[in-house]
Amino acid sequence: MPATDGSLLTSALASCGIQKSLDEVDDFLRGVLAAPKGFDPDAWLDLIAPADANDLRERLKERLRELEKRTADSALGIGARLDSLRSKLSTCGLDGLIVPLTDEHRNEYIPEARQRLSWLTGFTGSAGTLVVLSDRAVVFVDGRYTVQAKQQLDPNLFERAHLIDTPPDKWLGKNLKKDQRFGFDANLHVKTEVERLQKACTKAGARLVPLEKNPVDDVWVSQPPMPIAPLDSLALGYTGESSEDKRTRMGKRVEAASADVSLIGAPDSIAWLLNIRGGDVPYNPLTLAFALLHKDGAVELFLDKRKLKQDQSFDNNVAVRSQDDLGPSLDHLGASGKRVLADPAWTNVALTGRLRDAGAQLIEEAEPCILAKAVKNETELQGARNAQIRDGAAVTRFLAWLDGAIERGETVQELDAARVLEAERKKDPLYRGPSFDTISAAGPNAALAHYRVTEESNRSLERGSLYLVDSGGQYPDATTDITRTVAIGPPTDDMKRHYTLVLKGHIALDSAQFPEGTSGAQIDAFARAPLWRAGLDFDHGTGHGIGSFLCVHEGPARIAKTGTVPLKPGMILSNEPGYYKIDAYGIRIENLLIVREIDTPIGGERKLLGFEKLTRVPLDRRLIDTSLLSSDERNWINAYHASVRHDLEPHLDGSSKAWMLHATALLD
Amino acid sequence: MPATDGSLLTSALASCGIQKSLDEVDDFLRGVLAAPKGFDPDAWLDLIAPADANDLRERLKERLRELEKRTADSALGIGARLDSLRSKLSTCGLDGLIVPLTDEHRNEYIPEARQRLSWLTGFTGSAGTLVVLSDRAVVFVDGRYTVQAKQQLDPNLFERAHLIDTPPDKWLGKNLKKDQRFGFDANLHVKTEVERLQKACTKAGARLVPLEKNPVDDVWVSQPPMPIAPLDSLALGYTGESSEDKRTRMGKRVEAASADVSLIGAPDSIAWLLNIRGGDVPYNPLTLAFALLHKDGAVELFLDKRKLKQDQSFDNNVAVRSQDDLGPSLDHLGASGKRVLADPAWTNVALTGRLRDAGAQLIEEAEPCILAKAVKNETELQGARNAQIRDGAAVTRFLAWLDGAIERGETVQELDAARVLEAERKKDPLYRGPSFDTISAAGPNAALAHYRVTEESNRSLERGSLYLVDSGGQYPDATTDITRTVAIGPPTDDMKRHYTLVLKGHIALDSAQFPEGTSGAQIDAFARAPLWRAGLDFDHGTGHGIGSFLCVHEGPARIAKTGTVPLKPGMILSNEPGYYKIDAYGIRIENLLIVREIDTPIGGERKLLGFEKLTRVPLDRRLIDTSLLSSDERNWINAYHASVRHDLEPHLDGSSKAWMLHATALLD
Repeated sequence: MPATDGSLLTSALASCGIQKSLDEVDDFLRGVLAAPKGFDPDAWLDLIAPADANDLRERLKERLRELEKRTADSALGIGARLDSLRSKLSTCGLDGLIVPLTDEHRNEYIPEARQRLSWLTGFTGSAGTLVVLSDRAVVFVDGRYTVQAKQQLDPNLFERAHLIDTPPDKWLGKNLKKDQRFGFDANLHVKTEVERLQKACTKAGARLVPLEKNPVDDVWVSQPPMPIAPLDSLALGYTGESSEDKRTRMGKRVEAASADVSLIGAPDSIAWLLNIRGGDVPYNPLTLAFALLHKDGAVELFLDKRKLKQDQSFDNNVAVRSQDDLGPSLDHLGASGKRVLADPAWTNVALTGRLRDAGAQLIEEAEPCILAKAVKNETELQGARNAQIRDGAAVTRFLAWLDGAIERGETVQELDAARVLEAERKKDPLYRGPSFDTISAAGPNAALAHYRVTEESNRSLERGSLYLVDSGGQYPDATTDITRTVAIGPPTDDMKRHYTLVLKGHIALDSAQFPEGTSGAQIDAFARAPLWRAGLDFDHGTGHGIGSFLCVHEGPARIAKTGTVPLKPGMILSNEPGYYKIDAYGIRIENLLIVREIDTPIGGERKLLGFEKLTRVPLDRRLIDTSLLSSDERNWINAYHASVRHDLEPHLDGSSKAWMLHATALLD
Repeated sequence: MPATDGSLLTSALASCGIQKSLDEVDDFLRGVLAAPKGFDPDAWLDLIAPADANDLRERLKERLRELEKRTADSALGIGARLDSLRSKLSTCGLDGLIVPLTDEHRNEYIPEARQRLSWLTGFTGSAGTLVVLSDRAVVFVDGRYTVQAKQQLDPNLFERAHLIDTPPDKWLGKNLKKDQRFGFDANLHVKTEVERLQKACTKAGARLVPLEKNPVDDVWVSQPPMPIAPLDSLALGYTGESSEDKRTRMGKRVEAASADVSLIGAPDSIAWLLNIRGGDVPYNPLTLAFALLHKDGAVELFLDKRKLKQDQSFDNNVAVRSQDDLGPSLDHLGASGKRVLADPAWTNVALTGRLRDAGAQLIEEAEPCILAKAVKNETELQGARNAQIRDGAAVTRFLAWLDGAIERGETVQELDAARVLEAERKKDPLYRGPSFDTISAAGPNAALAHYRVTEESNRSLERGSLYLVDSGGQYPDATTDITRTVAIGPPTDDMKRHYTLVLKGHIALDSAQFPEGTSGAQIDAFARAPLWRAGLDFDHGTGHGIGSFLCVHEGPARIAKTGTVPLKPGMILSNEPGYYKIDAYGIRIENLLIVREIDTPIGGERKLLGFEKLTRVPLDRRLIDTSLLSSDERNWINAYHASVRHDLEPHLDGSSKAWMLHATALLD
């Protein structure tokens, strides 16, 4: 179905004096369609039309709806997609290709145009990898997605394998044949991944072929363009440090690493460094861009300039360039023999290869903003405290409503619950949207640690079951993330025992005291020991870093087996041990914590760190088996509930307040 | 001073029908001199003379003593050594060289011929690195050796730097100059080290130059040859698995890694695989050798054949070759396009480079014997239990003697104590020597975690102080390692508090229960938490693996921040938390533990692991502040002492037995 001829739009543009062809406008609108619907779905209009151009704005919205319809049209069967990819590979002299689920920035949430795995296979999980050979195609998924992969993948087209137990490189080492040519998109892989693929090819006697362009894009006719969402500045009242100061500070770190310039590929590093936020991907308020940070603090920002509002200003030391200028700029750095810091964990090998080929000296070290942004300043920490009270009040109102609804015998489904929670958060004028897809999980659904409710999976919250809700919000002063598990009707003894074991782990980590230099990996087991003793465990990390109005999962520190980065005062991390009883229920208790210096006890010699609790939402006392608690643990719970009561009371009224006061009463 | 003309020796050789020139015999004897004095200092005679050739044996011993005197002669000042190295470097077109303290096998204890650092600098610590530039020379040592380095290094010749805080590569990145050529001995470095050096050179714009031959050897005129010590077989009654079975089993792992052959550079892997032991380096009963393990289980062993006894036999599938044949054999593997497994952590880059240049396909994975030998079989575990009781009895007799001597007011010095302990161990006919240099440390000396007593540092054990003794023995059925800290006279409250905190950590780790797949890094903090809470810590790992009549420090598992290898049933590890009060005292409590499966509690879901205690020696009850103990901790101590009493009673008598019974009485 063709769009209208667009003559009304053309004249509306002309009458506002805007020199853009219909093709240019359509291109822009396709980018808008490719961006997630933000908190204000019409914000993009400011990028192209004056605020008072009502007619033009209406025409543009009309045109957008037409384009949206047209996009939805192009349906091509999965089998045909796979066939056309195989022909394409054959034309390129390739025997196979790896299709990871990532983009050139290593984003956790990636734009539609990079959802190649889902387009090729129909699998829509958040993690997975496809390997296509001429006669086989295998989708690798982890334990979270075994069931979903089975439901979504056509067994006549795809084999399934376990991403952790038999990762793609091991599989390739055994299944590639001698002298085969196996391709990978150099824009999507970092050094260690390429080394693993190279090992696999060496084992099999095959040849690994880096590709500049992804063959999937050549056969994906209806591939959406890269997203266009407005870029905004974030005020100093929220960031606590001007971009200029950050750039000077980070420039010095570039210099200390003996580099002339640092290539920054992580959009959240750029957002932090320039105090900007965007909306190009879901949940994380990011603008997709690359940047070069010079040691003198000057920045070159490479992005689609159509994302800039007319009044968006950067200071003199920030040069805004088109994304197409990045390659030539790297060539130029190389030609002048510059030493370029490129973080091997974050920089794809297309970029490092281009730099190396151009003659640059690569310095492979951590990109400095990654650590710097994880260590929050006092403004950000105070912002987090404030936001957590508002967010905690919203979650508490939701929990109060839920308890009431259950008591009244109303039917509550997972989707209903998620909607009420979202509505409670929306009452806060500072709320900017969810920080990730809410996990609203009843009964056995909660046993899947990363469950995502859909119309198909939607369950009722039944009496005698547990309900787990893991959710978070984006606010200009903080990103939040909280999990509570609540009893729906009277819980069983097992539920109480398991909840209490998880809580004991949560308390042990929360109360930990450890010397400066200690990493998250070193204290992760504190949260597991009570479960271990009972022969139980949970198969995810205990905690992740979190951004300030940035990514809900933020590096470099983690509280997990793999969290080898030392914890530093000012970092914000989650504390979320859990227990998952297959086909029965799931339990997780998550608070956010600030890493803080604490006083060294008398006779002590080391500078000690510990945690300050940020989250303020009652724990479900009905699920606590007090006979399993030590007196220290009992005191911890009572003290926590006293702080919840103190901080939330001014933000609640009526039945919510009464519910909260009851929920935070002293333990029996 | 020239040796005697050797005519008596020549005729003695002739009369035994031995076709060897005097030069050949001298070469052999120099190798013998380069080997540590073993438990039987005359064992080398069997390598060259018949058992009944008494005259020849006397002549050979005489010749050995003459050569020994001659070797001691060649003294050249440190300054002159450094000068001659610099001239040599200049001749080779090099601006600098790194001199690490290691050998081509990555041994912990290295032969005299590889003590280049000590020969060049005079520094005799067990860890350190020298960087020589044309105008500067820097010795990098860690915290253990700061004082010793200051004492031993001439400040006019050498700067000193901290090995951890400013490691050589960081230093080089800042101090090398553009276009300088910096050399390293390719036989002494593994891949990651070379990558770090390369990074440093890139930063500085310098050029990193791999060297086939070490320039130090060219100027070290009196450099000893490589050692010659007899190689012995270890009986099946100790090893529990025949070499043939091991080779078949490991060959399959080589094949599973898609390799044709594995290059083995670690002498302890070779010792384990072939069930052989040697005496080429101190403390570790190793024969220096390389090996190629083919996937069908066939082995090529490359070593100095003069270390073989006449009756030493290997089965048909083990081909014994000269060490000089290794290079050509690698070339041959390359020429036939073999896939060669070479562990990047253990294989020096001279070997991997040679393989690569020859056309081999390198498969960089863990050398399979490393994990296999760490997992002890039931024979080895039973051997360890047996040896630990004998060793525990020896240590207990020593502790009983020490207590008596102190009570009687006798003066006991560190060296005396070490001698008595050694004498007690020697009463065991199976004792083969110490497994490392005994740490016998009184008062403030024990605050240095790796203190080594010398004539100069020797201190008396004074009343009101603590004495720390960390020692171990080699036995054909096990290697042992134990630390006890004892009160000399009445301890202070602080000593008791600190000892009890360390003991609480020791008990917490000992009692840990954790799911299969858990690594040592994950549980290391259990041993630290009681100290952390008091603002204290210790700066070493909590535990290391230990061999079966092999290395006292054995990989791949560790209980430490860096111990990322999963613990497996059958592994033996130490549990040795400590506390070190600078200038005052040191405390460490070390038992060895076996990792074992334990029963999953009712309602549990995971296979659990825990520890079985091996060591049987009383803890010092006088140092325990029982008011700091939980009832579980108190029970642990009483139960441990009951097991010590049960197992040692049959092995002790008289005053030792009485002392032990008192020492293991119930806590008050």
